[in-house]
Amino acid sequence: MTLVIDAERVLADLRELAELTGGPAGARRLAWSPDWLVARDWFRGKLEELPVEVDRDEAGNVWASLPGRGDAEGFVIVGSHIDAVPSGGWLDGALGLMGALGVLRALAAADEPPPVEVRLVDWADEEGARFGRSLLGSSAVAGTLDPDDVRDLRDAGGTRLEDAMAACGIDLDGASAATGRLDGALAYLELHIEQGPVLLDTGRLASAVSGTFGDERYLVAFGGQSAHAGSTPMHLRRDTLAAAATAALEIREVGIRHGGVTTVGSIHSEPAVITAIAGASEMMLDLRHLDADTLATMLTECLAACESAAAKFDCTVAPRRVFGATPTPFHPELVALARAAVADSGGGDGPPIPSGPLHDATEIGRRVPTVMLFAQSDPPISHTEVEDSPEEALRVALEAYGRTVGATLGLVATGPLEVAR
Amino acid sequence: MTLVIDAERVLADLRELAELTGGPAGARRLAWSPDWLVARDWFRGKLEELPVEVDRDEAGNVWASLPGRGDAEGFVIVGSHIDAVPSGGWLDGALGLMGALGVLRALAAADEPPPVEVRLVDWADEEGARFGRSLLGSSAVAGTLDPDDVRDLRDAGGTRLEDAMAACGIDLDGASAATGRLDGALAYLELHIEQGPVLLDTGRLASAVSGTFGDERYLVAFGGQSAHAGSTPMHLRRDTLAAAATAALEIREVGIRHGGVTTVGSIHSEPAVITAIAGASEMMLDLRHLDADTLATMLTECLAACESAAAKFDCTVAPRRVFGATPTPFHPELVALARAAVADSGGGDGPPIPSGPLHDATEIGRRVPTVMLFAQSDPPISHTEVEDSPEEALRVALEAYGRTVGATLGLVATGPLEVAR
Repeated sequence: MTLVIDAERVLADLRELAELTGGPAGARRLAWSPDWLVARDWFRGKLEELPVEVDRDEAGNVWASLPGRGDAEGFVIVGSHIDAVPSGGWLDGALGLMGALGVLRALAAADEPPPVEVRLVDWADEEGARFGRSLLGSSAVAGTLDPDDVRDLRDAGGTRLEDAMAACGIDLDGASAATGRLDGALAYLELHIEQGPVLLDTGRLASAVSGTFGDERYLVAFGGQSAHAGSTPMHLRRDTLAAAATAALEIREVGIRHGGVTTVGSIHSEPAVITAIAGASEMMLDLRHLDADTLATMLTECLAACESAAAKFDCTVAPRRVFGATPTPFHPELVALARAAVADSGGGDGPPIPSGPLHDATEIGRRVPTVMLFAQSDPPISHTEVEDSPEEALRVALEAYGRTVGATLGLVATGPLEVAR
Repeated sequence: MTLVIDAERVLADLRELAELTGGPAGARRLAWSPDWLVARDWFRGKLEELPVEVDRDEAGNVWASLPGRGDAEGFVIVGSHIDAVPSGGWLDGALGLMGALGVLRALAAADEPPPVEVRLVDWADEEGARFGRSLLGSSAVAGTLDPDDVRDLRDAGGTRLEDAMAACGIDLDGASAATGRLDGALAYLELHIEQGPVLLDTGRLASAVSGTFGDERYLVAFGGQSAHAGSTPMHLRRDTLAAAATAALEIREVGIRHGGVTTVGSIHSEPAVITAIAGASEMMLDLRHLDADTLATMLTECLAACESAAAKFDCTVAPRRVFGATPTPFHPELVALARAAVADSGGGDGPPIPSGPLHDATEIGRRVPTVMLFAQSDPPISHTEVEDSPEEALRVALEAYGRTVGATLGLVATGPLEVAR
């Protein structure tokens, strides 16, 4: 079916939200904060202008249901998140949520109901910016959240996540009941800004997204011997910074070789005195790839690079895993629909690109056929108040998103998508 | 002349000093502190047992003069420093000073006076551990101290160096008058522990020292672009940590290639978040060599390595010089005497080794024929309470030091050493 989002109105909504909860210092919509509740209240006001039923699930996600014709059992989900990192941008999350609102508006204004029910969702605490656990609401719904893992996380002020949730009326231990929300879900479709430079670099305004990268994060500790920079000849050193630098450069090659991304964002050395050899160095390591097997190979190669660099400089090495997420490849039929929709919207027929950052679609894509669309970011950065996208990119992306939702509704009306497991 | 230091008594003095101003947490003899004054009072008591004249110069250095026979004009200086870094070892500085005391004792006990006058010196604030300026007393005497450079240095408690000196009765602005103390100096001879691993590694107990390295210290700032570790493909990064790591490894090769030492002790990156590319990195760089021209070549090559690493990763680079000291090669005749003395004392006929750390001899060697002797360090580290040397190494080094002083006195009695300029 044809579905045209009113892009002007979405842009107006985005500006209104930025006016209400942003400013020169960026977005003020930190999850579980009073600012966030203000933003959600504002959004509920928008939903209440439509013929939808609004409720909140056990994990704090807000849902709005627009009934369909009942051509098939189940429903299609559209949505994103309204929470933001401190001093964040005006588009991260908000674009997708206002786009989903635009979907409901277009459907509500149509002559007849959609073939199946459509549900909008505003995921709770996507960013994890306050307690360090991202994708909280969507992981509860996807069934991958263990309350005991997050209960005692504390914010900078010492408040526990469990208590902050309770203050918003959410019982952490009851959150898993929200998993029922995916029963009958036929598809999940999310629009987002790219937050990276790929579309800008290739001159594309929008793109279908092929999936979200799997992610492995390690802290790698190298142990050697601190000693006087003047009195210790080169051949008698056990220099952990040399070992870590060697490993970091080899790790970079691993990312290039496998078409993934590998990042050493910091090497912290002790004693960090200009006249002393670094006796201990800890390296931050982040590896991502869309293919789980390739990611595993990359990890093996990176850890081997650390081992061999340590051995070369007579150092010890101890890697510690601090985070892991498996890749979520999106549904191929939906990716193909999204790609065609981008082309039909004037965004060109470029290949789908993978997403390096995680999204709620990462969690939902584990259980429901899912696709995302990206709008170009320019400057190609995010999580900062200078985050932005050209208006033309937002327009093309919104048109493509409407087309993708419309095509998906037509497709699932004939029966559920096939899921390869 | 034959000069035999009573090594047992020197060891007893060192243990007594450690008892008085040390302990399990290391030495308590920080310059310009009450602890330091206690140590100096104790040492003055030792000097007063001898037929010497004791006084303090305008820079706070303590001198003790033992008259000679007057075979030649001038005097020979022996000495080191009694101040220590916080939690330092029992030998750094103290070995040389107690060795010099041993020289005076041996001379005072001899049947006749030495051919020329001998002066012992206890340099003030060699370590610079409290205010960050090392070699304070010896640089005042050598004429290389500018009071305005150090006046406003503050310790951790906010006290100014000028005020701390005044509290010990020293007027910083009058300190340069102490330069007269080198008029007539024929030689300066200093015994010290190596503070490094070269003698231990080669199985040598002691060695003549060929000179002290020149030293260039830089902070090198790399500028790039912080960006998301997931969303930024490898070829679109401006990764300052990759640039700094590349430079650090090339800098290491520069040190090896030229037989000097090059140290990158730290790379501090921002934002130092595991999911972010390092947008800024600052590298600590320390370069040392005994030959001034070679040191200059090394510096050129290291800065070129930084430039080329920055260019490779599309980063900027800005090196900033934070310290520089020219090399002090010691006097060749005195080095030859010291080498022979070590061999005659059972320390073997190994080649003289250079000193990476700076010493008071670095300053005095710019104006007076100078040599140092090193005793093996085991463990090969210093500036820590576990600093130590085998007793056998101390005995050999003390014997060699006595022999070197004796031979020097014989030599300068026939006329001053030739100085190549």
